[in-house]
Amino acid sequence: MKPMAKLVRADLERLDRDDPLAGFRAEFRLPPGILYFDGNSLGAMPVAAGSLARRIVEQEWAEGLVRSWNDAGWFALPRRLGGKIAGLIGAKPAEVVVTDSTGIDLYKTVAAALQHRPDRRVIVMEGSNFPTDNYAVQGLLDQLGGDYEIRFAEADTLVAAIDDTVAAICLTHVHYKSGRILDMAALTKAAHAVDALAVWDLCHSAGAIPVDLNACQADYAVGCTYKYLNGGPGSPAFIFVAERHLDRCRQPLTGWWGHAEPFAFERDYRPAADIGRMLSGTQPVLSLAVAEAGIDIMCRADMAAIRHKSVRMTDLLIELVETRCAGLGLELVSPRAARTRGSQVSFHHDGGLAVMQALISRGLIGDYRAPGNLRFGIAPLYLRYTDIWDAVQILRTVLETEAWCRPEFNRPGPVT
Amino acid sequence: MKPMAKLVRADLERLDRDDPLAGFRAEFRLPPGILYFDGNSLGAMPVAAGSLARRIVEQEWAEGLVRSWNDAGWFALPRRLGGKIAGLIGAKPAEVVVTDSTGIDLYKTVAAALQHRPDRRVIVMEGSNFPTDNYAVQGLLDQLGGDYEIRFAEADTLVAAIDDTVAAICLTHVHYKSGRILDMAALTKAAHAVDALAVWDLCHSAGAIPVDLNACQADYAVGCTYKYLNGGPGSPAFIFVAERHLDRCRQPLTGWWGHAEPFAFERDYRPAADIGRMLSGTQPVLSLAVAEAGIDIMCRADMAAIRHKSVRMTDLLIELVETRCAGLGLELVSPRAARTRGSQVSFHHDGGLAVMQALISRGLIGDYRAPGNLRFGIAPLYLRYTDIWDAVQILRTVLETEAWCRPEFNRPGPVT
Repeated sequence: MKPMAKLVRADLERLDRDDPLAGFRAEFRLPPGILYFDGNSLGAMPVAAGSLARRIVEQEWAEGLVRSWNDAGWFALPRRLGGKIAGLIGAKPAEVVVTDSTGIDLYKTVAAALQHRPDRRVIVMEGSNFPTDNYAVQGLLDQLGGDYEIRFAEADTLVAAIDDTVAAICLTHVHYKSGRILDMAALTKAAHAVDALAVWDLCHSAGAIPVDLNACQADYAVGCTYKYLNGGPGSPAFIFVAERHLDRCRQPLTGWWGHAEPFAFERDYRPAADIGRMLSGTQPVLSLAVAEAGIDIMCRADMAAIRHKSVRMTDLLIELVETRCAGLGLELVSPRAARTRGSQVSFHHDGGLAVMQALISRGLIGDYRAPGNLRFGIAPLYLRYTDIWDAVQILRTVLETEAWCRPEFNRPGPVT
Repeated sequence: MKPMAKLVRADLERLDRDDPLAGFRAEFRLPPGILYFDGNSLGAMPVAAGSLARRIVEQEWAEGLVRSWNDAGWFALPRRLGGKIAGLIGAKPAEVVVTDSTGIDLYKTVAAALQHRPDRRVIVMEGSNFPTDNYAVQGLLDQLGGDYEIRFAEADTLVAAIDDTVAAICLTHVHYKSGRILDMAALTKAAHAVDALAVWDLCHSAGAIPVDLNACQADYAVGCTYKYLNGGPGSPAFIFVAERHLDRCRQPLTGWWGHAEPFAFERDYRPAADIGRMLSGTQPVLSLAVAEAGIDIMCRADMAAIRHKSVRMTDLLIELVETRCAGLGLELVSPRAARTRGSQVSFHHDGGLAVMQALISRGLIGDYRAPGNLRFGIAPLYLRYTDIWDAVQILRTVLETEAWCRPEFNRPGPVT
């Protein structure tokens, strides 16, 4: 490709014409006039989700009523959707179930992991991780009592933090703010080298970058369906348990959906023999069933093509910003090396919140994460190369013309 | 009214004409040719739920995208819907939040209750309760370790089981199988008399019978929105925390939605000052938001009128069955006294499963709970008095004509 400084919009139009994923865009409903760079927070709506929601509400619920638990397969949804997601994360279908929220699922999986190493008391996590991960583990450790502790480290110090006092590492594969990818294989290996377990949070990687849990020998994992899997707002999360742990793992949120025989209505809990033991109570069918529309699209897409397009788009975004918005107060937060960068790009700006509000008012939707972080998510199934160009134009205009976004208005001054 | 033996269908038609709740039926979509007596398992679909689901999927998600978390009020749903349900259960709006599942919410509330009495180790429950309640508490106690125990009792022996070793009672207000109502006021008083806490499960009472948590001085409660509140399949459950406990109660499933400042993205958990501290992770918006249609209908209905109609209908069902199906192998399981009977009637039949399958094939939908239990739920907002008559006709026909339902085919024989 040309040097960045010489790129024109027509060059990106050509990339769109040659894009093997271009056809997927028509499978999403995107509002006119909007450049949507927040699919890493809430994925866009698959067209098929509309008719799916109508079918579930107006046929399965209204007409089928309680019979739909069996006839429409509602009861089977957690395992069935789990089986589909498995293919996206390097797991076997029998190792994944869709249920509850990421926070709840972290509680279950970390609790299960700790039971493998009852003699150890340390969990390694990233202090800068998305807070719910830390909160979930903090709540668990408070509950367990005793001398459990979280050992906080950051990307570069994680390996050094893993010693033979560690029961488990609990890490997010792609960082929610910077988009930095942790080396799942190396960190899992480091954990196993000291007989610790590895629990991975795939919220920002499932559907965004290649994931191969079993090749990395991960023990447990959780992830989100409403970001790159386009499952709908707050659609349930997923849990992965490596097959080798399935027959003995135990989690504390025991409910009738995780029982060996839910309809025997036994007084005492007996876990299901399969991944179903990670389930707890009755699931929100509407949110769960509608998520299938987005999951199905992702299952048809080629992950290598997604990653190729994602890398090219994030490279372009960084380079266009750095050439066309030079001197306007933006600083790259995400890794410069594509190899360690997920499908998002973050820039710091001292007036980040005001900048993001101005961008959104002009139709460029990204999001803001304090302090100062402008996050742009790249969803290769529905974003075009030209969207990158147009987004950078809007960003430049906002930074140049809106006074309160200019650096001199946002320099930290003396506190008075 | 006439003696039962002399009742004719026209008498019930008259009751329908005079029914002050009759207008509510039109607010539900009910499939033609179906008598739906399973609203205690999954409530019928409110007509308004259809347009609500379309609005959330096709406008709020598709058009609003991530902006809808604020603009469409998604983030506020747990508290906002909780405020509405509060009016149905004798609570203040600030005491209720809608979130997660009944099982998860029981885990949270019982864990919170136990923290009030760290020196005690006994939880009183009903062995015959709906299993998820027992499983949730069993999972919690396993997690807490030590010498915690569940003391199982049944309705008539509960008061005797409450002594000064008891930390909390955790009871279901209306029994899922028999429909028997426990005396919430008396049992809560018995618990408080020994400084124990009272946690109530309202799954089969919210929207079905009058509930007054604060008059009874209940401490914590949970309940279901997809039964008598008609929230949709698996719609999230609710949690009640008495105002006097709000500032110090702690629950272990800590997540960012329960944080004092979710968008400050702090590393360490600090609970919200309000009922929000009972929240954990991101909620399933579609299931949560659609539940409002059913909750809103219930908020407009008069609970005294609902209870009056429910009692009359369950009385009629029992008496019509006992007169018109006499000698056909049915035995009343539910309390005969209306005062202690919720909004359902259960009969035992040795061939219960086959009978229920035959009833369903003829358009009468109730449900079966092993062993031998035929459950008929009465939802006064959409059932008619004549439906009771017609249901009993179908029941009689099935029991008289389908050989495998007749008692002589279902007597337990010698095991060979």
